[in-house]
Amino acid sequence: MPSLKTQPVSSAAASSAAPPPAVRVYEVGPRDGLQNEQAFIPTEDKITLIETLADAGLARVEITSFVNPRWIPALADADRVAAGLAHHPRYAEAFTALCPNLKGLSRVDDTPLREVAVFMSASESHNKRNINKSRDETYPKFEPVFAACAERGLRVRAYVSVVWGCPYEGAVDPAEAVDVAERLLAMGAYEVSLGDTIGVGDPAQTHRILDAMTARIPIEKLALHMHDTRGTALANCLAGYEHGVRTFDASVAGLGGCPYAPGASGNLATEDLVYMFERMGVSTGVDLDRLVDAGLLAQRLLGRTLPGRALQALSAGRTP
Amino acid sequence: MPSLKTQPVSSAAASSAAPPPAVRVYEVGPRDGLQNEQAFIPTEDKITLIETLADAGLARVEITSFVNPRWIPALADADRVAAGLAHHPRYAEAFTALCPNLKGLSRVDDTPLREVAVFMSASESHNKRNINKSRDETYPKFEPVFAACAERGLRVRAYVSVVWGCPYEGAVDPAEAVDVAERLLAMGAYEVSLGDTIGVGDPAQTHRILDAMTARIPIEKLALHMHDTRGTALANCLAGYEHGVRTFDASVAGLGGCPYAPGASGNLATEDLVYMFERMGVSTGVDLDRLVDAGLLAQRLLGRTLPGRALQALSAGRTP
Repeated sequence: MPSLKTQPVSSAAASSAAPPPAVRVYEVGPRDGLQNEQAFIPTEDKITLIETLADAGLARVEITSFVNPRWIPALADADRVAAGLAHHPRYAEAFTALCPNLKGLSRVDDTPLREVAVFMSASESHNKRNINKSRDETYPKFEPVFAACAERGLRVRAYVSVVWGCPYEGAVDPAEAVDVAERLLAMGAYEVSLGDTIGVGDPAQTHRILDAMTARIPIEKLALHMHDTRGTALANCLAGYEHGVRTFDASVAGLGGCPYAPGASGNLATEDLVYMFERMGVSTGVDLDRLVDAGLLAQRLLGRTLPGRALQALSAGRTP
Repeated sequence: MPSLKTQPVSSAAASSAAPPPAVRVYEVGPRDGLQNEQAFIPTEDKITLIETLADAGLARVEITSFVNPRWIPALADADRVAAGLAHHPRYAEAFTALCPNLKGLSRVDDTPLREVAVFMSASESHNKRNINKSRDETYPKFEPVFAACAERGLRVRAYVSVVWGCPYEGAVDPAEAVDVAERLLAMGAYEVSLGDTIGVGDPAQTHRILDAMTARIPIEKLALHMHDTRGTALANCLAGYEHGVRTFDASVAGLGGCPYAPGASGNLATEDLVYMFERMGVSTGVDLDRLVDAGLLAQRLLGRTLPGRALQALSAGRTP
């Protein structure tokens, strides 16, 4: 079969028009994908996966989480992962890690990381259940983290969860999500990643949320973190792209299930996202063949077929 | 968890705006999905599946294929399926079957079917490999079929395959697909369903194809039949809806793999399509709970988890 991966259907159309705006792809698999795995993936394997992802050209790779290892045993080797990558030429540019507090930040000090990420929820109930604090109690805890990052010259990215819907409250008023996003940006975040944590969103809703956001926040400050639990993640990303969003989160091979629906898909697969955009003529900076290498490696490490669709199709002709 | 299935995020927004145009969903699972299955599903089980789909409110259900049973042994019971459904109140309105030739049509005469479907390919190579005829040799074979259907008052739907890409030729010039679609409509088809048979399409390409089509064909005559092999089917349907397409094909639970990529997904899952549109406020006429019943039944009949995403998420809380 001739390669159809990224080939424009009409070369005339492709050459006569200016290329559409490029996007940045933020890879969350090694952190968001692996954090819910029961099996502990050996540190060396995590490092190989992260290196393969970085070599594929992803704008960012979130390599681990500097939280208490008792909370997330799967990522208990955060310090060793960060140290084991120290030689990587794209470290300062491309690697980042979740780091919700000052204790985590003290561990980041021992690494070449130049960026960290924090998270909170758009809904009060989800924030309380997730981190045992109200939203208003959360901001003061972040203040010293942002201050310390500013002092160290670390970029801070902020995730806002459950923007498209909350497992405890149902619908979430976009105004609440806008308020959380604005406050995190005001505290110093360079970007806010809006998450459809339970994968309920639809494209019309995505437009409504972005309308509410962009009334207060420049679109350049917003990223989308869509889950594919009901198959709508790519359609939501398409709506976001049409709205002007240029940064999208995804997880290699779709690593990371949905904690609220056992057996269901969670994170959008990076290969699906990159395939769609590249074939639309939208540059992602990602080498899709190399990304498929990473997806196949993820499947070998986990010992099972992962939910990414393009991964299965693009690797079908390969020798395993 | 509160139900988030079809709940608009802002009831104010939902009530203040006129509802967006409704869509029709054309279910292909019992024919297009089952035709590649190795296992023969018992006739009674097929009938139950089709009844469940019809009761869920799908606009059309393609119940079987009146081809030579040696070609498609999985559907060798076409006559018994059609007869076994004879009592169904939606038969004349909702049921249809593939019927590529006069021999097939003579079998349709013994049923209450009021609609049949024919198919050909946008690319010369795919048409030759699929039905062993050039495109120009195919039209004369269809003429007596269309004439006989006109005489009997049967509606004819036409599929055009490989519009987004061909497994043998790669890119397909939209002008070739437009030519095939126009000729099939001129012969008497009431609608042409444009197929991304190998699931390579992207939303920008979908817009380009629909631009080319609608320069010659009213958009009301066009349906989309997208495959989810690389995860892009729903994004392509969204692009098609934005372009004005109002009829979409899908397969319950995503039944039907991709014959060119073993292990990969094929047909778009009906639950994913219905979930997205209903949550956008776009009426599909389909009861999603009842559709999930059909998806779970399909999984039981096939004895495996099928690729539909919304199906897994929406059924996660149910007792199996």
